[in-house]
Amino acid sequence: MSGTLYGVGLGPGDPELITLKAARLIGAAKVIAYPTLAGGDSFARAIAAGLIPQDAREIRMDVPMSTEREPAQKAYDAGAAQIAEALEAGEDVVCLCEGDPFFYGSFMYLFARLSGQFDTQIIPGVTSVTACAARAAMPLAARNERLTILPGPLPEAELRARIDGAESVAIMKVGRHLPKIRGVINALGLTDQAMYIERATLPEEVVLPLGDAPEQAPYFSMILLTKGADPWL
Amino acid sequence: MSGTLYGVGLGPGDPELITLKAARLIGAAKVIAYPTLAGGDSFARAIAAGLIPQDAREIRMDVPMSTEREPAQKAYDAGAAQIAEALEAGEDVVCLCEGDPFFYGSFMYLFARLSGQFDTQIIPGVTSVTACAARAAMPLAARNERLTILPGPLPEAELRARIDGAESVAIMKVGRHLPKIRGVINALGLTDQAMYIERATLPEEVVLPLGDAPEQAPYFSMILLTKGADPWL
Ligand SMILES: C[S@@+](CC[C@H](N)C(=O)[O-])C[C@H]1O[C@@H](n2cnc3c(N)ncnc32)[C@H](O)[C@@H]1O
Ligand SMILES: C[S@@+](CC[C@H](N)C(=O)[O-])C[C@H]1O[C@@H](n2cnc3c(N)ncnc32)[C@H](O)[C@@H]1O
Repeated sequence: MSGTLYGVGLGPGDPELITLKAARLIGAAKVIAYPTLAGGDSFARAIAAGLIPQDAREIRMDVPMSTEREPAQKAYDAGAAQIAEALEAGEDVVCLCEGDPFFYGSFMYLFARLSGQFDTQIIPGVTSVTACAARAAMPLAARNERLTILPGPLPEAELRARIDGAESVAIMKVGRHLPKIRGVINALGLTDQAMYIERATLPEEVVLPLGDAPEQAPYFSMILLTKGADPWL
Repeated sequence: MSGTLYGVGLGPGDPELITLKAARLIGAAKVIAYPTLAGGDSFARAIAAGLIPQDAREIRMDVPMSTEREPAQKAYDAGAAQIAEALEAGEDVVCLCEGDPFFYGSFMYLFARLSGQFDTQIIPGVTSVTACAARAAMPLAARNERLTILPGPLPEAELRARIDGAESVAIMKVGRHLPKIRGVINALGLTDQAMYIERATLPEEVVLPLGDAPEQAPYFSMILLTKGADPWL
């Protein structure tokens, strides 16, 4: 009997925003897997650190920083092979994933490689989008309002068109794309309706109107925009 | 000193998908508030039932079923007045909210009425969107993909235009709008890429390809659609 592959969402950063189910699975885990960026610390592991059993075996996947696909593909191939070995030996494997596993999560690359062969369960988590909205005291959408999630690396013209036709917008993966995104929002006259949120729910959290945002944004930052189309009930 | 108003997300239905923070706040609550639809049972209360202290005082808001705004407004006005009384007396009030409070959540109506006067904290929760994606084994968005959230009650022409221009789509509040939504997705030739999910993470859960969905959908149902624009890493 092969083991079960768990893709476990950990929420946006505050360890208290882990779900009871994720906490139970992590606390009972014998094998834990997680990606690290360019050999650095794993944000996912840091969120779950207080729950990981001392004797759990840890599978690290060092994903290189690169805009090319091949190096990252090789890292996930190698990680998936190690995970498959544990699953074939009958061990369950708990894959840690910041936020929600199926919402821009790295777990999707393991899911694509392993879910065909192994029993796979996804434990949803609190996404960074609603965590940022909570910390910015910014309701996202009600009644018949629409909400659009856009990645910051999209080309300027596409960002502009998508924001223009949208009601509420969350822009992920801001980082070095901040000047471009700010320019687009400014040109649309929407800066006063936008908030900038960095490392939401962590001690280092920053929440500012977009007009007061710093020049440089880290990877873990987001911009939320609501046009407040529909007046509140 | 006035009390603090907590808007607490409970996740999509499985009580184990409550966060550690929400569980802590509910377990210590002296006053709990929640809406009920048309005097029926409260889904939010049912999710949290196992955590609510026996001696907690409960403030029910009976929101009438109506497409007119005034009856619902009056129900939230009355609920907000009761909550304000408790807060002014120095008691904290924990408002229960299915899913995430700021994502199509009823708590937004209390937030609009009370956050100006009282210290207010939002505890984000797992949304129904990522919960449905997890249960349907359907990754939502990766890398530079876009995700659009649409409410099912939108007019047919708008639904069609919004789905047509989108990549991944989640359609909320399906219920009696199922035939209209199904027609739009069919006309766009996208039925094979769509899943129907009902009461995700609950024992009565239903997960089906849209083509096999029942004729009638309950309120707690959703359609997920991914065009898989970008091949997996
Ligand atoms: C690869 S995606 C992972 C998203 C994650 N799976 C989720 O469900 O939120 C990384 C992006 O999520 C956003 N993000 C994640 N955690 C965040 C936080 N605590 N504060 C602000 N943004 C965050 C940032 O936009 C970041 O660039
Ligand atoms: C008023 S909205 C509340 C959304 C909630 N605040 C959230 O964060 O998911 C109600 C809609 O959410 C969706 N929904 C909520 N729970 C669900 C579940 N367990 N399964 C499927 N859909 C659900 C349905 O589309 C329903 O019509």
